[in-house]
Amino acid sequence: MPESSKLSERRPRAVGLLGGGVIGGGWAARFVLNGVDVRLYGRSPGALERVQKMLANARRAYQRLTLVPMPAEGSLTVVKSVEDAVRGVELVQESAPERLELKQQLLATASRAAAPETLICSSTSGLRPSLLQAEMDHPDRLLVAHPFNPVYLLPLVELCAGQSTAPEALARAAEIYRSVGMHPLVMRKEVDGFIANRLQEAVFREALWLVHDDLATVQEVDDAVCYSFGLRRPVIGPVQGYRITVAETSARRAMERFGPELKLPWTKLTEVPEFTDAFLDKLAEQSDAQAGNMTIPELEQKRDDCLVAVLQGLRAQGHGAGETLARWEQGLRDRILPLTNGSGLLRMPARQIPSEWNDCDGHVVESHYSKLFHIATDNLLCYIGVDGEYRSNCGSYHTVEMHLFHLRELYAGDRVQVLTQILGADDKHLHLFHVLTRESDEEQAATGEQVLLHVSAGSGHRGPVQGNVRERVLELARLHAKLPCPERAGGSITLR
Amino acid sequence: MPESSKLSERRPRAVGLLGGGVIGGGWAARFVLNGVDVRLYGRSPGALERVQKMLANARRAYQRLTLVPMPAEGSLTVVKSVEDAVRGVELVQESAPERLELKQQLLATASRAAAPETLICSSTSGLRPSLLQAEMDHPDRLLVAHPFNPVYLLPLVELCAGQSTAPEALARAAEIYRSVGMHPLVMRKEVDGFIANRLQEAVFREALWLVHDDLATVQEVDDAVCYSFGLRRPVIGPVQGYRITVAETSARRAMERFGPELKLPWTKLTEVPEFTDAFLDKLAEQSDAQAGNMTIPELEQKRDDCLVAVLQGLRAQGHGAGETLARWEQGLRDRILPLTNGSGLLRMPARQIPSEWNDCDGHVVESHYSKLFHIATDNLLCYIGVDGEYRSNCGSYHTVEMHLFHLRELYAGDRVQVLTQILGADDKHLHLFHVLTRESDEEQAATGEQVLLHVSAGSGHRGPVQGNVRERVLELARLHAKLPCPERAGGSITLR
Repeated sequence: MPESSKLSERRPRAVGLLGGGVIGGGWAARFVLNGVDVRLYGRSPGALERVQKMLANARRAYQRLTLVPMPAEGSLTVVKSVEDAVRGVELVQESAPERLELKQQLLATASRAAAPETLICSSTSGLRPSLLQAEMDHPDRLLVAHPFNPVYLLPLVELCAGQSTAPEALARAAEIYRSVGMHPLVMRKEVDGFIANRLQEAVFREALWLVHDDLATVQEVDDAVCYSFGLRRPVIGPVQGYRITVAETSARRAMERFGPELKLPWTKLTEVPEFTDAFLDKLAEQSDAQAGNMTIPELEQKRDDCLVAVLQGLRAQGHGAGETLARWEQGLRDRILPLTNGSGLLRMPARQIPSEWNDCDGHVVESHYSKLFHIATDNLLCYIGVDGEYRSNCGSYHTVEMHLFHLRELYAGDRVQVLTQILGADDKHLHLFHVLTRESDEEQAATGEQVLLHVSAGSGHRGPVQGNVRERVLELARLHAKLPCPERAGGSITLR
Repeated sequence: MPESSKLSERRPRAVGLLGGGVIGGGWAARFVLNGVDVRLYGRSPGALERVQKMLANARRAYQRLTLVPMPAEGSLTVVKSVEDAVRGVELVQESAPERLELKQQLLATASRAAAPETLICSSTSGLRPSLLQAEMDHPDRLLVAHPFNPVYLLPLVELCAGQSTAPEALARAAEIYRSVGMHPLVMRKEVDGFIANRLQEAVFREALWLVHDDLATVQEVDDAVCYSFGLRRPVIGPVQGYRITVAETSARRAMERFGPELKLPWTKLTEVPEFTDAFLDKLAEQSDAQAGNMTIPELEQKRDDCLVAVLQGLRAQGHGAGETLARWEQGLRDRILPLTNGSGLLRMPARQIPSEWNDCDGHVVESHYSKLFHIATDNLLCYIGVDGEYRSNCGSYHTVEMHLFHLRELYAGDRVQVLTQILGADDKHLHLFHVLTRESDEEQAATGEQVLLHVSAGSGHRGPVQGNVRERVLELARLHAKLPCPERAGGSITLR
């Protein structure tokens, strides 16, 4: 694995792209946004416009993908000939339509115009590199580098050498793709369709049978994937996924159990490899190697953590299984009864700090303290009756000021709770004081003093709190006024 | 679609589970954590222990999955007979091993002991419900309800009726599964293997061929999935995924284009449906219906948003493609040059507010203001030379106090920037003042006053800033001391 700090040094200055379709455009976006100059040759007249649209999509996606500032964008130049695209660049990426003769011709032309040391890679989805090399000058620098749509987001690039490909060409290509955020996978043998497309096509073919035989509609087939094993797919592959499901500690026994099931007449395509002893040994050995030092329960926990992250991500998008989750949460929310402690303070139920909240030093990042106080405020609003109906008809409270005081570090795994006191309330304002404590020792970890303003529905301007919510908040404020005022309330930061 | 607010009303009070393996245990966890009492009958001696372990896993997963407080847990009772499990419950869920006779016998026994109105569902992965009904009393309330592992996290449940199943039994079952957060999918016809398992098995079989023929190892097969099309699977199914990839606006033409490709000798399993006119029409019609009112570019944007969310989720877990992303970000971070504005203040590059930052009122949630100031602080630390090496050898700064002042609302799509001023610095403290402005009008949207403490590496206690970092921070503080002190610095929250 190369040192990450040196990744940017391996980034090429300029690349030449042949083809401006979905794949060529995706390459252009990935390279330009990574600061690489792109020279693009596309035969169809609308190529520039299409590529610019993809670039805009990619810019928008990257803004959400990462909080790290991006390098200055590379330039995008559309050129009129193959020769103009390939001269003076470090890498040529061919993404023409999947016709062997067309690609052979294009690559031959490129190979004669490019410097002999320029890498030439083909994005073909399935054609063998040995066939693509046939007509080229210096065919040793030709390899397949097969990406996945959208190229600017999906990291995999399958690298496949042909008969004449030099090993150092493969190594150089892998470094270049890694420098722009990709995950190169070097093929062991040259084969039609490489790896991922063979797997994708097997699913697609079975999906076609289901639709063809009226067993399911296109929508039902897609839903069956997206709401079930598809959620696992960014997290765990089909083989390890199967191994974890079967309650067997030995990989060999897990694999052995699947043999008979594969011969059941569930699918249209029943040709399967024989489960010979030698094949079972190989499967078991490789599955053990893949698991490394992790036990099945450890792998299960890792899988769960990742699935949660994926589901949370999808929830923020209101999409697929995330929508199901949001609907389920809404059902849960409708039956919350917030709690008070002995002294009448409002208490947010204790929760455990997840490991994602840590920064690289192992401490909880401060914005998460703020998030905990935000949840406590939601809890209070829920308690005084600010629900969906009240928000739509009357309004809600918005934070105008927040003063956080950190008293001790928290770590992932700590169980924490928040106690909330109303320091003051009138028709428009709500002044709160939150105390975050560890459940184990009840010591204060942080305090949050917060002022909220009541904003009327629709107008977006300040307006008085109404009806039952007004009564409940003023009554709670009267009760809390009898409690002692917290020591840190009203404090200011001292200039040093 | 039922009213979400009524979901909890459809939740059963008690269910009976037959079988305490991976699937039965998963059901137990989902029901118990949703507040449903569970009576579990498992033949193997370690069933209770196994189920309790799964329940613990599920509790842990749910704590991360949702910030909404869960209902009081249902009870888990392990009983000694089928009869004890099924009496007085609304739903019986059978999850015994996949042997037809065993299941038939178990379901027959259950059907004689349960009240006639009790629903009886089988978790079978592929056996037809008509076969399972054979020996039952009141077979009209038997259906297949096939879940996916882990049952407490994956939402899909395939519902399949047998010859004797009553339509109202299907409808009641769908409501029950929806009430515990699942996505029921009702099969159109009775078929071995249902939908999702046929698709999963097609992939698995192809994966086995790849491994068998030494084209890829188990690890490579799984990686090829997880880093490429697998990332799309929680987001978009195989059929719509294909349609978006092909640059064709008509679904029929998109599908037509795939016909010849499916016949290429890429896989071991080449039996494919004939692309007759009637079949093409059907595919096109269903694909159009699935897209609804959304155009291809709209579908693309939705797909991208979800992929970003999935990738961010995986990044927080340091897993698979998320690790690739993190490594790429580290590479980017290593070449950041923070900027200063005309007056010498540090400037965080402008960024757009993503739609996920909105609360239900359409405003940016306050913890995200805090996050923006956190990023600005990271920017400053980067500027003064606090990098990975400094953190490991010398230490870093931790926030001890933060005072946020909200001045105007921000909305998704706004482009914002942060200007940072050092108000004071000594060997151990750093006192900052951040101003968040909209790029368009440069009006202040929020201010953040922050005090940080220098903490020594290893010890976790306060300790002096060292070397070049010390020089740079003190020099920058001297420069910033010449600037006017911000109006809101040192302010306190007034008690109302």
